[in-house]
Amino acid sequence: MSLALSLAKQGALTVSPNPQVGCVIVNEACIVGQGFHQYAGEPHAEIHALQKAGKKAQGATVYVNLEPCCHYGKTPPCTSALIQAGIKKIYIACSDPNPLVSGKGIAALRAANIEVELGLCEAQAQTLNEVFFHFIQHRRPFVILKWTMSVDGKTVTHPKDIRQISSEDAQNHLHQLRHGVDAILIGAHTARLDNPLLTVRKENFVGKQPLRVILSTQGDLPLDLKLFDPQLPGKTILMTTENVKSFPSHVEVIAFKKDKTGKIKLQDVLNVLGERQITSLLVEGGMQVHQQFFQEKLINQICFYLSPVAIFSFENKIKLENFSFVKTGSDLFIETRLA
Amino acid sequence: MSLALSLAKQGALTVSPNPQVGCVIVNEACIVGQGFHQYAGEPHAEIHALQKAGKKAQGATVYVNLEPCCHYGKTPPCTSALIQAGIKKIYIACSDPNPLVSGKGIAALRAANIEVELGLCEAQAQTLNEVFFHFIQHRRPFVILKWTMSVDGKTVTHPKDIRQISSEDAQNHLHQLRHGVDAILIGAHTARLDNPLLTVRKENFVGKQPLRVILSTQGDLPLDLKLFDPQLPGKTILMTTENVKSFPSHVEVIAFKKDKTGKIKLQDVLNVLGERQITSLLVEGGMQVHQQFFQEKLINQICFYLSPVAIFSFENKIKLENFSFVKTGSDLFIETRLA
Repeated sequence: MSLALSLAKQGALTVSPNPQVGCVIVNEACIVGQGFHQYAGEPHAEIHALQKAGKKAQGATVYVNLEPCCHYGKTPPCTSALIQAGIKKIYIACSDPNPLVSGKGIAALRAANIEVELGLCEAQAQTLNEVFFHFIQHRRPFVILKWTMSVDGKTVTHPKDIRQISSEDAQNHLHQLRHGVDAILIGAHTARLDNPLLTVRKENFVGKQPLRVILSTQGDLPLDLKLFDPQLPGKTILMTTENVKSFPSHVEVIAFKKDKTGKIKLQDVLNVLGERQITSLLVEGGMQVHQQFFQEKLINQICFYLSPVAIFSFENKIKLENFSFVKTGSDLFIETRLA
Repeated sequence: MSLALSLAKQGALTVSPNPQVGCVIVNEACIVGQGFHQYAGEPHAEIHALQKAGKKAQGATVYVNLEPCCHYGKTPPCTSALIQAGIKKIYIACSDPNPLVSGKGIAALRAANIEVELGLCEAQAQTLNEVFFHFIQHRRPFVILKWTMSVDGKTVTHPKDIRQISSEDAQNHLHQLRHGVDAILIGAHTARLDNPLLTVRKENFVGKQPLRVILSTQGDLPLDLKLFDPQLPGKTILMTTENVKSFPSHVEVIAFKKDKTGKIKLQDVLNVLGERQITSLLVEGGMQVHQQFFQEKLINQICFYLSPVAIFSFENKIKLENFSFVKTGSDLFIETRLA
């Protein structure tokens, strides 16, 4: 099952909105087939593994980290393939909360006299696909808040200073983080102030750019923001409360009802993104937007870069030495000096 | 020398304004004496070790982490004692920047035909006594900034919320930190808002309370602050720019000239503290005071507790799960979730 989980992870950046699944087939103590789900819409892990196993699947044992599907989606059901191949026993790490599967896959296997053991490495399997599980149950994306902060708790530098707070290594780490999500969201203030690209920029990157979402209740953002550049790979959506018409056609504009405070309700935003098969959303600020996500209790994960710089109200950030740190209870005790 | 350094550390909380010194005497591959400087004004490490060694000091080798003194202070010079005991060779980790010693101790030993080797474990010895070395060279305290911060960079909670941000373990850690310094300083805003005690509170604590210093340009602090309680062990000093007369006699008031911006110059504050043999100062906020220390370039060390709570403008802080974290270049990448 550990091998199945490792195989599954190889699909991490390419299977959304599907789950990550790996499958290993063992016959007489030998691995006779293995595979993982590679791209949404293409064959599932079980099919790859069965193809490799061929006739050796007869009487074999299967290890798979998710309950096999039993319905016709973009591909035929895996349960049928497993039954036809003559599998004798199957270990499944966890059941699929997808209402189209949810125990029916296991039932179909058992009905065909395949022995099913559920729960091997279940915790790891749950963690591996937590984004998918969240999406399939709530039909809205798994929300990750992200920001970068100085030692004095600032996320924005002095207007005369360069905006970047974190190190090049942290920037590269962020691009990896962006690569792992379906969409990125920022508020209007951050769009104006930082004028970011929100693209994945890393060496040899060929994948799909995450969808870019800007929240702007007024919808009055300047058209020369980099996010509205028609040459920018991927797609930008402006979410607003007004009927704005002045945006070029490559920028999709979605108008929402205002809530009591005149803002866009984030629950509504997530529902729209969920309808578009956005399973994960990275919220890159500003802190006002983060606060609203806290208020509406729509957060799944929080992550931030803490940088060895002091900003205060100085024109130039002050560089500090690399951190040394130690856990003190639930807190981190962090030490540094002037660089 | 490692043993000498370990011994030296045992005096960490009791020798200020003196340095931490440990001494080991070896004769024919046996340790014949060892000691450390225990309390300011009492015998130095070398004297303790020589007493233990007795006649076995004759022809022996000494390991000591700081150049022995050669002047009459509160105790007679150690160089004389070492010479009289018939020491043959001495390893010294680093020389003493104290202008009363500074190479003269080594010269005295060499003049008496004792072989001197300088520089063994020098880096560790420098770090061990960096507070003393800073003080002896600049005649002002080694300054440590300290604050506690939520994940959203707040150091102050909502007025309706409890003020404490960090965990009990972090609080205990802070009391250990306080125990290690000669004085603690806060600004007037923090004095009003937090109304702190600034005392060392830990089990079986019997040592001297650090001197408490409050900066208040106006000097108009309410007399019922806990810091002005005559029952409070230790001493509180109010530093102000005005001639305030209304304070009870147990609170010392020092009036400074205003600088251009109407504030007290921190350099002046440190000079006054230096005159009083305050070798180390813990600055516990608020962030305005910290910023001023940055501006005046008077910082030796920065430390802060990062707590898994989100404050924003919420009436009650939001508790988060324990951090997981990883270094990304010079930054820390920290992950958490709602608790």
